[in-house]
Amino acid sequence: MAEYDLVVLGGTIATASDTFQADIGVRDGRIVALAERLDGGAETIDATGRLVLPGGIEGHCHIEQESSSGIMSADDYYTGSVSAAFGGNSCFVPFAAQHKGMGVTETLDLYDSRAAPKSVIDYSYHLIISDPSEAVLAELPKAFARGVTSFKVFMTYDLMRLGDGQLLDILSVAKAHGALTMVHAENNDIIKWTSKRLLEGGYTAPRYHAISHPALAEEEAINRVISLAKFVDAPLFVVHVSTPEGAELVRRARQAGARIFAETCPQYLFLTREDLDRPGMEGAKFMCSPPVRDAATQDALWRHVEAGTFASVSSDHAPYRFDETGKLMGGPNAAFKQIANGMPGIAMRLPLLFSEGVVKGRISLNQFVALSSTNAAKTFGLSPKKGTIAIGADADIAIWDPNETRTVSLADQHDAMDYTPFEGMRVTGWPRTVLSRGRPVVLEGELKAAAGSGAFVARGTVDLSGLPGHRTPELDPARNFGARIAP
Amino acid sequence: MAEYDLVVLGGTIATASDTFQADIGVRDGRIVALAERLDGGAETIDATGRLVLPGGIEGHCHIEQESSSGIMSADDYYTGSVSAAFGGNSCFVPFAAQHKGMGVTETLDLYDSRAAPKSVIDYSYHLIISDPSEAVLAELPKAFARGVTSFKVFMTYDLMRLGDGQLLDILSVAKAHGALTMVHAENNDIIKWTSKRLLEGGYTAPRYHAISHPALAEEEAINRVISLAKFVDAPLFVVHVSTPEGAELVRRARQAGARIFAETCPQYLFLTREDLDRPGMEGAKFMCSPPVRDAATQDALWRHVEAGTFASVSSDHAPYRFDETGKLMGGPNAAFKQIANGMPGIAMRLPLLFSEGVVKGRISLNQFVALSSTNAAKTFGLSPKKGTIAIGADADIAIWDPNETRTVSLADQHDAMDYTPFEGMRVTGWPRTVLSRGRPVVLEGELKAAAGSGAFVARGTVDLSGLPGHRTPELDPARNFGARIAP
Amino acid sequence: MAEYDLVVLGGTIATASDTFQADIGVRDGRIVALAERLDGGAETIDATGRLVLPGGIEGHCHIEQESSSGIMSADDYYTGSVSAAFGGNSCFVPFAAQHKGMGVTETLDLYDSRAAPKSVIDYSYHLIISDPSEAVLAELPKAFARGVTSFKVFMTYDLMRLGDGQLLDILSVAKAHGALTMVHAENNDIIKWTSKRLLEGGYTAPRYHAISHPALAEEEAINRVISLAKFVDAPLFVVHVSTPEGAELVRRARQAGARIFAETCPQYLFLTREDLDRPGMEGAKFMCSPPVRDAATQDALWRHVEAGTFASVSSDHAPYRFDETGKLMGGPNAAFKQIANGMPGIAMRLPLLFSEGVVKGRISLNQFVALSSTNAAKTFGLSPKKGTIAIGADADIAIWDPNETRTVSLADQHDAMDYTPFEGMRVTGWPRTVLSRGRPVVLEGELKAAAGSGAFVARGTVDLSGLPGHRTPELDPARNFGARIAP
Amino acid sequence: MAEYDLVVLGGTIATASDTFQADIGVRDGRIVALAERLDGGAETIDATGRLVLPGGIEGHCHIEQESSSGIMSADDYYTGSVSAAFGGNSCFVPFAAQHKGMGVTETLDLYDSRAAPKSVIDYSYHLIISDPSEAVLAELPKAFARGVTSFKVFMTYDLMRLGDGQLLDILSVAKAHGALTMVHAENNDIIKWTSKRLLEGGYTAPRYHAISHPALAEEEAINRVISLAKFVDAPLFVVHVSTPEGAELVRRARQAGARIFAETCPQYLFLTREDLDRPGMEGAKFMCSPPVRDAATQDALWRHVEAGTFASVSSDHAPYRFDETGKLMGGPNAAFKQIANGMPGIAMRLPLLFSEGVVKGRISLNQFVALSSTNAAKTFGLSPKKGTIAIGADADIAIWDPNETRTVSLADQHDAMDYTPFEGMRVTGWPRTVLSRGRPVVLEGELKAAAGSGAFVARGTVDLSGLPGHRTPELDPARNFGARIAP
Repeated sequence: MAEYDLVVLGGTIATASDTFQADIGVRDGRIVALAERLDGGAETIDATGRLVLPGGIEGHCHIEQESSSGIMSADDYYTGSVSAAFGGNSCFVPFAAQHKGMGVTETLDLYDSRAAPKSVIDYSYHLIISDPSEAVLAELPKAFARGVTSFKVFMTYDLMRLGDGQLLDILSVAKAHGALTMVHAENNDIIKWTSKRLLEGGYTAPRYHAISHPALAEEEAINRVISLAKFVDAPLFVVHVSTPEGAELVRRARQAGARIFAETCPQYLFLTREDLDRPGMEGAKFMCSPPVRDAATQDALWRHVEAGTFASVSSDHAPYRFDETGKLMGGPNAAFKQIANGMPGIAMRLPLLFSEGVVKGRISLNQFVALSSTNAAKTFGLSPKKGTIAIGADADIAIWDPNETRTVSLADQHDAMDYTPFEGMRVTGWPRTVLSRGRPVVLEGELKAAAGSGAFVARGTVDLSGLPGHRTPELDPARNFGARIAP
Repeated sequence: MAEYDLVVLGGTIATASDTFQADIGVRDGRIVALAERLDGGAETIDATGRLVLPGGIEGHCHIEQESSSGIMSADDYYTGSVSAAFGGNSCFVPFAAQHKGMGVTETLDLYDSRAAPKSVIDYSYHLIISDPSEAVLAELPKAFARGVTSFKVFMTYDLMRLGDGQLLDILSVAKAHGALTMVHAENNDIIKWTSKRLLEGGYTAPRYHAISHPALAEEEAINRVISLAKFVDAPLFVVHVSTPEGAELVRRARQAGARIFAETCPQYLFLTREDLDRPGMEGAKFMCSPPVRDAATQDALWRHVEAGTFASVSSDHAPYRFDETGKLMGGPNAAFKQIANGMPGIAMRLPLLFSEGVVKGRISLNQFVALSSTNAAKTFGLSPKKGTIAIGADADIAIWDPNETRTVSLADQHDAMDYTPFEGMRVTGWPRTVLSRGRPVVLEGELKAAAGSGAFVARGTVDLSGLPGHRTPELDPARNFGARIAP
Repeated sequence: MAEYDLVVLGGTIATASDTFQADIGVRDGRIVALAERLDGGAETIDATGRLVLPGGIEGHCHIEQESSSGIMSADDYYTGSVSAAFGGNSCFVPFAAQHKGMGVTETLDLYDSRAAPKSVIDYSYHLIISDPSEAVLAELPKAFARGVTSFKVFMTYDLMRLGDGQLLDILSVAKAHGALTMVHAENNDIIKWTSKRLLEGGYTAPRYHAISHPALAEEEAINRVISLAKFVDAPLFVVHVSTPEGAELVRRARQAGARIFAETCPQYLFLTREDLDRPGMEGAKFMCSPPVRDAATQDALWRHVEAGTFASVSSDHAPYRFDETGKLMGGPNAAFKQIANGMPGIAMRLPLLFSEGVVKGRISLNQFVALSSTNAAKTFGLSPKKGTIAIGADADIAIWDPNETRTVSLADQHDAMDYTPFEGMRVTGWPRTVLSRGRPVVLEGELKAAAGSGAFVARGTVDLSGLPGHRTPELDPARNFGARIAP
Repeated sequence: MAEYDLVVLGGTIATASDTFQADIGVRDGRIVALAERLDGGAETIDATGRLVLPGGIEGHCHIEQESSSGIMSADDYYTGSVSAAFGGNSCFVPFAAQHKGMGVTETLDLYDSRAAPKSVIDYSYHLIISDPSEAVLAELPKAFARGVTSFKVFMTYDLMRLGDGQLLDILSVAKAHGALTMVHAENNDIIKWTSKRLLEGGYTAPRYHAISHPALAEEEAINRVISLAKFVDAPLFVVHVSTPEGAELVRRARQAGARIFAETCPQYLFLTREDLDRPGMEGAKFMCSPPVRDAATQDALWRHVEAGTFASVSSDHAPYRFDETGKLMGGPNAAFKQIANGMPGIAMRLPLLFSEGVVKGRISLNQFVALSSTNAAKTFGLSPKKGTIAIGADADIAIWDPNETRTVSLADQHDAMDYTPFEGMRVTGWPRTVLSRGRPVVLEGELKAAAGSGAFVARGTVDLSGLPGHRTPELDPARNFGARIAP
């Protein structure tokens, strides 16, 4: 009998801190040996000349999820997971959205029924809370008990947003149970006030979407929610930061001892508001919230990526097709408020970050691993099972050809979309093979996994000790007494 | 016939920039001559060895005003103005409070009926807006037309607070008419959330008032309202700043070109939360919002006073007696939420600032004049009539003995209160005489003016050009497009 | 007999804090009356429709001074003072340069012999110290005794620069006698190291002068000298700040309680390094140290002017003609190191600042007065005699036509130069008349004063209390123990 | 024949990013296998219940080195390496000091003759340059060629300090050859100026040593040398940072794209200037440069340790005995300037950091690995051979008992010293076994290695890409043109 179910031979392995050459021995879906030379694999994959990395963990994507305004994302758990895998990911954590009136268990059951039969990679959910009634708060421990240990809350969108008191409730409950609160931080009133005046003034084109979501609206909301998290000494994860001002607030809070983490997304590193100016409704393809900004913003965000401000770069894959089922739900001449927000990108997150980050020398290969996989595993309670190549970890592995160059095209996305916002960009480096618990999901560019072969991963309580700046500061009653009196 | 109605002889005069010796000739209530030697006064006051300063302008006080919870301040326009005059002030600008359901004209008429028959010094009002309905917004130009060119709005107190969208409405209407928005900035939800838990936990003593209003709540709200003001490029005045973090936000905004101004108050410079710990209900005497902080905060606020961050030091005189008509409205054992907020101080603002500021060398005499009078005149549209000693200005003059030392006592307050929070402090320097338009209101410590001798002052539109940092920055559509589309 | 020697009628007077209409009565060279209406002047000047301002005080100019490399400035005390007067100044404080080997009294006597017979306006000197030997330090009290209470020292130029220990010596001696240390702050080694490599590489054109004096060299030196001044708790004045980084260091130090003041100059607000690129040797006309920078730097420096970071805007008038006696001493094809550094501007400082500052709304008229006159008077010990319009002050007055527009030309400079770097700029606002102690120096554009009619002004010890941020902080032995053990 | 020379069984392994359980297979001194279960070791070590970490790399220690004033350190390469090994280190990089007049090859040969016969662990040197003459600069490539790729330079000590121009020379030569410049940053003049006055005033006790090296002197020098490094775009490593102000400068520079790295040391985290106040000459035991500071400084430095500002925590082991051969060379009553500077600590660096950092929850175990070993390996060109536990790396391993508690005593230091400044502190966690290339150096607390068993390690050029913030920014000619014209 073979000692290993699978041996990956001869690749250059990188973790978040190390780079080395070794063979990998896999048994029962886990990495059980790393050695200069391993024999005895029932199966082998030759990775000579390739990079062998922890499979990407996509921490921010909308899959088979109704938006608050009722549009279903184009990707279900099959197309979504397939696209993720082709993009170098072996695990993802989409959202399970509690809309007003829904219970916690009801919501999670619904998403289990969607994901289990279809996903080709492992998955969990962040539970979106839009209605933190006493009943819902009381039901939350059931989510923790089944391994859903992160929430997402919104500070904007009338149907989703929570007030500051509700945010304090969620933050303190999450903290008490070792769970993590994620937040979409934009000031709702600024956006509404501006949108109303823009529409009244006839400013309806896609470009006004960006005008209605000014940088100040994000900066203000990030400052506010960090204040709330500091007040109850709860960990916080700010999603899709699009401004250097917001990133700087995160950095400063962490320097001061608060456990505040954040991500940015490819759209903020690779697109600008000039894309919103494309003729006709083309600009609608580039609409997301917060909106894409400008070149100076990109540069400043890259500096934060390089310097370690962001834990992750996530896709915020929000697949709305460029037709009446998606973007153009409001019709072909809709004003910007009637156009669905969000863009696809789950397959491009890693190739873009690799090409512009690693190949261009902005970040090291080890930083790429941290930003694409390891930090997400640590932040979201998937560690040490996921997010690294180490003895005992799941054999979730992406094998990259660092030299392959490609022009981004829709065909390579493998999703259910009819466009990609990154069409035509040139990238160097491409994920060729993705293993999930040792099983080939994608093998040299061919899909190998069956629908439903991915599994739900129960996550642990949040342990942020693997990330710098996690320490609880001394409580100052004049500042964060809230931490003492929270449940 | 005498050339001058009054000549003030031989004093050392100080303005916000200069100090010199001169006689002052007054005719028809105005300063018409300054000279080394003036003869021909029908009356004379010998100011030899004295400081002759612009009379103080008290920009923040609650006089004959019902609080949102219905308590009437102890001082009416008679006692309030008398106390102000004994404290070196020749003009004040209390609030005219629009409670929900009241109209603008109705409110101002009410306050005119209160002030006109009683005030011994000149006055105007800041109009508090608690209900910015479309009808009220439409009626605001009537306030401007009668010379009320500043508003106050609240971010806290359930009955008073405005949402961010309402703040944008007020800021942009005020800006369009050259008026100034003043704001009480504390995060309402943090205070409510904390108070609820404190009361549930049996933490009811006065000291928990300060715990329920943490520094973070002020810092957050100041950051937010500055963001809103920047977004519509409107001037803003943050009242009673109690934290260096808040002061720093004001300073940085102005450095970046926004017209953001602020004041602090004596309670934040001279009292600490240890005063709240006094035995029994004594601590209630020191309750105000935002609350008094600690010694380190005092030091940091003094640095901002010295360095020019604050335009003014105001009293926030909020006179609630230490009995059932005031502080103890909730009974002798009331929890902190049932105790009226605010403390008296209109008579002590200037002696305290002079003694601890000028005498101790922290600020120059010229800075004292700026902080106590000139900047308020400029900020609130009283300039050039009020706030300085110059040809053409009203003869609003305070004559100080810089060497007189006194122990603060209730008797010296001349208000309707039964305590002063500053009891027992030693001060050097005391205002002996106050003239309002040349009339002696207080003469060598004796009250001379009759009720109703003060007059309403119609104020001009706000001209902040006399203060540094007033320039309108170029509008960046990604930041403050709001300024372009506001009414 | 007339009551007043002169009455200035009907003008709009501005001080650093106030603006008002009044007549001014002058007797024996001093302002003795300000009134709505004054009769009885032996002479009168009608200033109706004009601005009546304190005469400018030029705090930074090189007049009849040999540079360390031996070139004599083109302007002597006659042409220099005449040019200053035509530019709205009634007083100036050029440098008296102690070159190596010279004594203090010897130096001051030399400059007295130059200034006394020629100057048409009042004057004093800042004493440049290039050789602080024990003998020189011991002789310094003689300078204080004759009213020279400010020094200038250099951190760059091999023949002038002092080491850090020498700077500590000067700072602590100056402090002990109430004198002020002024400093030219650039890192000498960076400039030398870079210049050597540039010249070796054949980069000799004027534009490389700016490359050899990078912004970093100024920022580093300002940081260093502020550290030294803080260490001995001495006041410091940083001359000709050309970078926002330097300005920010000054601002921050003052906020932290150090008495650090600074000026910038018109060249940094109105010229850029593109001027150095003009064809042939034309660029040499725009060479000065520190060098002119770029448009972004100008914007940032203006923000500091507006926000009050700078006490003054000074000219740094350093008149080297565009011929072999000056700029081109090294010949018509000289490398940048052989070209004299400095440019003229004593006549243009105020018209440029008025036009671009006041007329364009960046600063108020009162800020203009502070930046052009009042703050220099306070900083350099000329107050209260000079720098304001107040009873008892010298009648040093500039009368401006705020509406006159002019195109800058050499003819209007009235100096001994053959070019002006501001040639062709359009300005609005022009000084028509300048009085020095009541004597007309320039009257409606005509020179009226004779050579030698100006007088030396003995200055007092420095009193910075008129400027914000002057307080001595508590001494922390771990930081500035130096202050305790200095002489 | 056994497959492995050694197998380490059952331990919990930690790298800078991961923690996992595995056996380690060692062959020919290198790690060749990591697996859940390994058989076939010729030797085995049971690490059950133990932490298996990369051996510490001590990057800052003075071994068998004469100080500039001629005192030989008490430890030679035998006692120094033994002490290091007992403290959990498997490699160290002491200094090879070029004193004035010595050549590069001469210096390195001298240190080879000292280290080779004695060291029990692997070693390299940082080459101290005190005399960068043209001849020395020309000889430097010989150092690079033999694998010495880092320099140390001093900004203080009259016999060692380099001027700013010399620093630019060194930085640009080092950069051109891929080498790293390390710097001792304190302002020499401030220290000399203050020391002179202290001694003149009779302030001679050890405590005045700290007064003579104020925090400002470090902050100034760090700012200056960062400016120089930025100017020529060279990497820089600031040693023994003792102030949060210095740390903040490093952090900000890196955020802005400069490759500026730094370390702090245990003395700044665990001792204060109160230790200098111990009676008699006891304080001399705690003298080092920069000096120990205060409790607030310790807290602030810990925040920087936690947040990732520092690459390493190093010992700065400078062993001068408390007798006439060391500390008291100036006699038993010597003034502080006659007392040798420096203290021992090579054996305590890691136990202190583990106990106060990991056990108390301030840093994660992975951060401990990074700070103690991995980052030093990356910074100093020892990576990937040293600094991690990965396939192909040298089997440099420290096995810790995380639960052992000890009271620090001299006996545990195993050095040639007669005191330890950390005497009596309680620590939890202790290194029991240290392997160097698979050889036991210390085995369960027993020394096993012979003198000379350690080997010189030729280091590679510096590759900082493994650390965040390493990117070369775009060159701005107004800022760092130096980078273009450097050799």
